[in-house]
Amino acid sequence: MRITKEQITSSNEKRLKQHQSRWHVLKEQLEEKGADTNEMIKQLRLFQIAIPSWALGTGGTRFGRFPIGGAPRNLEEKMMDIGLLHSLNSSSGAISLHIPWDIPDNIPNIKSLAKELDLRFDAVNSNTFQDQPNQKYSYRYGSLSHTDKNVRNQAIAHNLEVVKYGVALGTNVLSVWLSDGAIFPGQHNIREALQRTSDSLQQIYKGMPDDFEMLVEYKPFEPAFYATVIPDWGTSLLLVNKLGDRAKTLVDLGHHLPNANIEQVVATLLSEKKLGGFHFNDSKYADDDLTTGSIKPYQLFLIFHELVEGLRAQNLPMQHLSWMIDASHNIKDPLEDLLQSVEAIKLSFAQALLVSENRLHDAQLQNDPALAQEILQDAFRTDVRPLVAEARLQEGGVLEPIGCYREFKVRGELIKERGKNAVATGL
Amino acid sequence: MRITKEQITSSNEKRLKQHQSRWHVLKEQLEEKGADTNEMIKQLRLFQIAIPSWALGTGGTRFGRFPIGGAPRNLEEKMMDIGLLHSLNSSSGAISLHIPWDIPDNIPNIKSLAKELDLRFDAVNSNTFQDQPNQKYSYRYGSLSHTDKNVRNQAIAHNLEVVKYGVALGTNVLSVWLSDGAIFPGQHNIREALQRTSDSLQQIYKGMPDDFEMLVEYKPFEPAFYATVIPDWGTSLLLVNKLGDRAKTLVDLGHHLPNANIEQVVATLLSEKKLGGFHFNDSKYADDDLTTGSIKPYQLFLIFHELVEGLRAQNLPMQHLSWMIDASHNIKDPLEDLLQSVEAIKLSFAQALLVSENRLHDAQLQNDPALAQEILQDAFRTDVRPLVAEARLQEGGVLEPIGCYREFKVRGELIKERGKNAVATGL
Amino acid sequence: MRITKEQITSSNEKRLKQHQSRWHVLKEQLEEKGADTNEMIKQLRLFQIAIPSWALGTGGTRFGRFPIGGAPRNLEEKMMDIGLLHSLNSSSGAISLHIPWDIPDNIPNIKSLAKELDLRFDAVNSNTFQDQPNQKYSYRYGSLSHTDKNVRNQAIAHNLEVVKYGVALGTNVLSVWLSDGAIFPGQHNIREALQRTSDSLQQIYKGMPDDFEMLVEYKPFEPAFYATVIPDWGTSLLLVNKLGDRAKTLVDLGHHLPNANIEQVVATLLSEKKLGGFHFNDSKYADDDLTTGSIKPYQLFLIFHELVEGLRAQNLPMQHLSWMIDASHNIKDPLEDLLQSVEAIKLSFAQALLVSENRLHDAQLQNDPALAQEILQDAFRTDVRPLVAEARLQEGGVLEPIGCYREFKVRGELIKERGKNAVATGL
Amino acid sequence: MRITKEQITSSNEKRLKQHQSRWHVLKEQLEEKGADTNEMIKQLRLFQIAIPSWALGTGGTRFGRFPIGGAPRNLEEKMMDIGLLHSLNSSSGAISLHIPWDIPDNIPNIKSLAKELDLRFDAVNSNTFQDQPNQKYSYRYGSLSHTDKNVRNQAIAHNLEVVKYGVALGTNVLSVWLSDGAIFPGQHNIREALQRTSDSLQQIYKGMPDDFEMLVEYKPFEPAFYATVIPDWGTSLLLVNKLGDRAKTLVDLGHHLPNANIEQVVATLLSEKKLGGFHFNDSKYADDDLTTGSIKPYQLFLIFHELVEGLRAQNLPMQHLSWMIDASHNIKDPLEDLLQSVEAIKLSFAQALLVSENRLHDAQLQNDPALAQEILQDAFRTDVRPLVAEARLQEGGVLEPIGCYREFKVRGELIKERGKNAVATGL
Repeated sequence: MRITKEQITSSNEKRLKQHQSRWHVLKEQLEEKGADTNEMIKQLRLFQIAIPSWALGTGGTRFGRFPIGGAPRNLEEKMMDIGLLHSLNSSSGAISLHIPWDIPDNIPNIKSLAKELDLRFDAVNSNTFQDQPNQKYSYRYGSLSHTDKNVRNQAIAHNLEVVKYGVALGTNVLSVWLSDGAIFPGQHNIREALQRTSDSLQQIYKGMPDDFEMLVEYKPFEPAFYATVIPDWGTSLLLVNKLGDRAKTLVDLGHHLPNANIEQVVATLLSEKKLGGFHFNDSKYADDDLTTGSIKPYQLFLIFHELVEGLRAQNLPMQHLSWMIDASHNIKDPLEDLLQSVEAIKLSFAQALLVSENRLHDAQLQNDPALAQEILQDAFRTDVRPLVAEARLQEGGVLEPIGCYREFKVRGELIKERGKNAVATGL
Repeated sequence: MRITKEQITSSNEKRLKQHQSRWHVLKEQLEEKGADTNEMIKQLRLFQIAIPSWALGTGGTRFGRFPIGGAPRNLEEKMMDIGLLHSLNSSSGAISLHIPWDIPDNIPNIKSLAKELDLRFDAVNSNTFQDQPNQKYSYRYGSLSHTDKNVRNQAIAHNLEVVKYGVALGTNVLSVWLSDGAIFPGQHNIREALQRTSDSLQQIYKGMPDDFEMLVEYKPFEPAFYATVIPDWGTSLLLVNKLGDRAKTLVDLGHHLPNANIEQVVATLLSEKKLGGFHFNDSKYADDDLTTGSIKPYQLFLIFHELVEGLRAQNLPMQHLSWMIDASHNIKDPLEDLLQSVEAIKLSFAQALLVSENRLHDAQLQNDPALAQEILQDAFRTDVRPLVAEARLQEGGVLEPIGCYREFKVRGELIKERGKNAVATGL
Repeated sequence: MRITKEQITSSNEKRLKQHQSRWHVLKEQLEEKGADTNEMIKQLRLFQIAIPSWALGTGGTRFGRFPIGGAPRNLEEKMMDIGLLHSLNSSSGAISLHIPWDIPDNIPNIKSLAKELDLRFDAVNSNTFQDQPNQKYSYRYGSLSHTDKNVRNQAIAHNLEVVKYGVALGTNVLSVWLSDGAIFPGQHNIREALQRTSDSLQQIYKGMPDDFEMLVEYKPFEPAFYATVIPDWGTSLLLVNKLGDRAKTLVDLGHHLPNANIEQVVATLLSEKKLGGFHFNDSKYADDDLTTGSIKPYQLFLIFHELVEGLRAQNLPMQHLSWMIDASHNIKDPLEDLLQSVEAIKLSFAQALLVSENRLHDAQLQNDPALAQEILQDAFRTDVRPLVAEARLQEGGVLEPIGCYREFKVRGELIKERGKNAVATGL
Repeated sequence: MRITKEQITSSNEKRLKQHQSRWHVLKEQLEEKGADTNEMIKQLRLFQIAIPSWALGTGGTRFGRFPIGGAPRNLEEKMMDIGLLHSLNSSSGAISLHIPWDIPDNIPNIKSLAKELDLRFDAVNSNTFQDQPNQKYSYRYGSLSHTDKNVRNQAIAHNLEVVKYGVALGTNVLSVWLSDGAIFPGQHNIREALQRTSDSLQQIYKGMPDDFEMLVEYKPFEPAFYATVIPDWGTSLLLVNKLGDRAKTLVDLGHHLPNANIEQVVATLLSEKKLGGFHFNDSKYADDDLTTGSIKPYQLFLIFHELVEGLRAQNLPMQHLSWMIDASHNIKDPLEDLLQSVEAIKLSFAQALLVSENRLHDAQLQNDPALAQEILQDAFRTDVRPLVAEARLQEGGVLEPIGCYREFKVRGELIKERGKNAVATGL
């Protein structure tokens, strides 16, 4: 299924008057404060968030899974789904592949489909947390950190194979997430496991083309429930510092201990020039993988505030980093869930753009926390939906993505095409 | 595979001398302090912890699963596995079934096998967190709390069917764990969902035989990641108080928010006469379902201290409650894991029996926290392994369960019998 | 220092045009959706949040304290400060006293000052977490839960004395927060401590006038670091259920374990008709006592959504509960901090009033979590500042409380009047 | 007050027979497994844990304080108290000073008293979390991270003055703990605050003598409740790496987010050669500063296991690090509390010495987590009290420190000498 230009145009026509009136009011209000709304719109239009190929089907927990039907059955269908999202929100123009779930059989076809759908290939992801059929060695006790050199070599080779797919598809970023770690005290020697991980990463790093970047993700627990090999940003930073300039840390919002100050992690990594990418989601308890912005929208805003301010201070564009959603859609329609996440991300980005950095900096220099809070919350409390909608409109998308998704009866169409029991590879 | 009396006897003979020497020293040491070691041994021998039928195969997380081979392929084989454990540790003389994973086809055969293996049937467990093939209504959006009366009725009927199996097998306890809840804010009306849950439980309660007990479990999250219908002991207590005398709360050690004081929950429920049962496991981060005692053995001791002291204050035996292990064996041999859990539980129980309650009470009345700590830690620091081993010996088990399990090459035998790829139903 | 009508009028005049233009746009937008903006304004005007007498000076931690000057030196000056806040925001028309920090020497004078400042007396608070000079028995090891009957009786008598002050001042609510609890395992018998607490509360309850209400607060830790006597809402509910109809639970936002779902606690207590009052603040880590809305504004909105929906379902007005701020102002000017808290509370209340309960309920009945989220977030994303400002304007306050506070140079005036080193009683 | 050799001898005589019998049994048991008990005793005798000068009086929380009497009124009396502890446990032969709380007026006298009491001076600690009378600039908004260069310079100068006292007293370690940080989002620029902190530390580092070491502590919150300048080990490591070889990280057990794996932090820092020191305490909820080993003794053992194994792998003695207790004694007699902490630390150290590292390493290489757990828990479950007592006896201490402390009526004597209302400087 594809959404036609006509559908988009006609859906926007119905909403245009109301939108223009609201956008007009907001524009005026922002410009009164000296904001450059054209620049904001430009930045919002440029900002694209990759969709991971594994997030288009119904997710699940160890307790079960409740598929919704119409799931994409292969890579092409996954790309079609992302194309649908992108045609609605104009902000999902990238796909992040997971190997071996999404091995592209016919690279030229895949690239031509991507071009047709206006999609870019973002970071490629390796998988050493599951055993694949016909795999020689098991990852039961780890991969890059395994005590057995054969297992490590197999995992290194797999990562380098993933890099090859990346090269073929035209991306230059490899994301590494390891489930390696001890489930029980004593299971491994913590120091040696870290050393082996470091050595293995070194070999992958050396095997990558010179323009390739490696992002090293961290996670405190699950599936390793005692001591994950790369539990926190500190360990990731330690590793990427040993690797070299093209190795950086990847932050997943759900991969932190309770109460962690994620925006501070972001600021610190940025100041060390080691923030490489982002996995968006939201969570209340653990790595819940919920819709971005559904639980802690103010935290998301504060994170974007650090991103905007930190990148600006180094004269870097937002595109300097890899942006991706990494959520699990257990109960909502995955495509609606992704639309909601992208919208929440863009709203937070827009609010962060609204922050008057000069005034804030003055308040900080004067040690005026009450004023600093007023400035931040002024941006957060502003209803920036018309601004984000205007950017989407100018970029060719629809004014109301979720509304249109339902009007166009997309899920129903997908079920018709693919069946009620179609299953997507992924978590 | 069965372990013979001869195997047990000969394995014990090798270790007897060393055991007797250590037990002698400990006995003397305890009796010097006025402890009644015979009574302790009696209590330890009586204390049986049920094994759940779903914990005999390799567990897993949403990220994958690494089976070990030799898993029991049906209820009979599960019972055989528990029989193996029980013949080693003399403390696993009960099985807790999960319906529909373990529907007993031929009740008389199952009962006779249980008798042969010296196993009792403990609480039966219902399952409304997964959809079964051919199920009319889906539990995607809940079961006992569902907005649709048809779904609730189906879930109520299922629970009453589980009760029937319980009656047939000779147990009189139903355990109810609900995965019902909202994954996102707004998904359900919290108040109404609780009310519907209460009404559904009421119908199950009314449908149970007069001597049947209902245990209501609580859990703060997973798989519902925003608002579980029964998130904490307070909500469970509220519900069981509305149900009646035969409804009680079940405590699972892994079902608490970070830093929760579980022993206090236990003490409070006991004092309200509403503690009905226990699911043992251990965890560092969330509901990790690790081997009992592998992470926080002192907490386990403090919990047993409350159990021993609280039941004694009401003149109730330990058997007044339902005791069960509820862990997931992702990486260890499930049977070894269970042996370790049972051992840790018995050690904690033994240490709790050592606490001089009179001296402790005096220290409490004199507000002497340093002395109170000395008394508790004196018990905890005592090496009670010979005491537990002696109780096991007297009850007919082996002195060293894990050691013998390996000597007898049990897993190898099971793989020979059942194959490398045998899969057990369960999580 | 007092703020004159003229100051208010002239400060509003400067801002009126801009306000009216924004309010006009918002009003139209809300009314398009069928909202009754007059009713909303009425409710916002009625909603008053009490200021605790101990929150007007600089707070601190065990590590130190950095006073700002101009702190109120006695009850009259505290009331004057609240009067200042109320004249600015028209929403702080109540004071909550803490005995013995604020014993009113001359009741008629105090009452007449309150009347003059348009202040009501809200809940009175007892203090058994500190020893007062000349106190016969120490609360070192507890108060209402103490093992020694003499200490308990002293604490009971103190609470009844606090009630007397309440009666004299015209309030009918007693708030009880206990710091009682064990700092170490074994320090007290958990069950007996709870029983003694229950008995002591019973005696206070019996000693109160027939129209007096008792609010029982809970807190998981600090200053007791192992087992607080009333650690959670479940224990508080258990106690108030034993006391009677006029005993209810008080929720302090900072008194929960990490990741707790506070809005669910609120909903459950409301449905049991046992929610009695609220202490507002915000926190990232523990009982941080930060400005309300400074860390988790979406959580605050979700809580207000439960409050609005839950009270409406029982046909109860917001005034049915006791509302109070309970924060510690370690670094901001306390009065600015309070103005920010009250503003955040009113914005959340206003957003909750915007939720279309019928549409939400429909989405819930249809199990449409994506739509439910859209409805909640539509309310939350709306910029309701003009609505709250309009309500404040109609009630006689200023359009921009913090702005005016600074324009009027209030702190400077207070320092002039009271000195740089004035110290207020309180935490 | 001093404890005489005669008191020690006679107290030991009473207990000697029982001790020898138990020690004999344990010794045999350990040696059967191939343990070198003489080496263990040697290591235990050498291991000394510094007592901080501020921990000898009653601690408190922001809610109050309940002094016990007999507190040391000056540095000499503090040293006398530590001397008392050391004469009992033979393991507290070091003192850690806090400036300006404990400025030594007469250095030669202080040094001679130390010599007499067999005390060494361990790390000196600076204090920039409180304002001192007559201080020119306030630390209200930070010290080493302050936006104002004058404040930073004052704090730098203070640290260098602390170093001077250290030099004079014969120590060569400076501990830096900063309470600097933002209490509210936006209060400071996270990146710039970190940079200023780094610059200030650089200046202190440069100003220290060439043999001086700097330990940089981290803490996630309290008193800064939003973003502490050095929140975690990763930030501390980042800073000390920039400083140089003589800058290292200090781990305080209470300074972590919920569920953190502290033993992993220890292992990682050790492997980076950047672990410099340790602050011992215990906690259930936050930085509770409880008696070491009172809440999570197994975690303490796992930490010591990493310490023993990690230092051994680098051929470093335990004395390579600075060991200190950092607890707050709110309710227990501070000296008893310290005796209990030291005992718990030594027991954990002894248990860690028992771990058969070779067998454990084999189990790890064979990926046998069940066996690894058996090996660790075998050590932990062993009752090593006779081993620790024997080491204490050989070193000249008493067999039962707490027992003797009470027999000798130390607190009563101290109250007689110093009065009921004596107050010690400190938290």
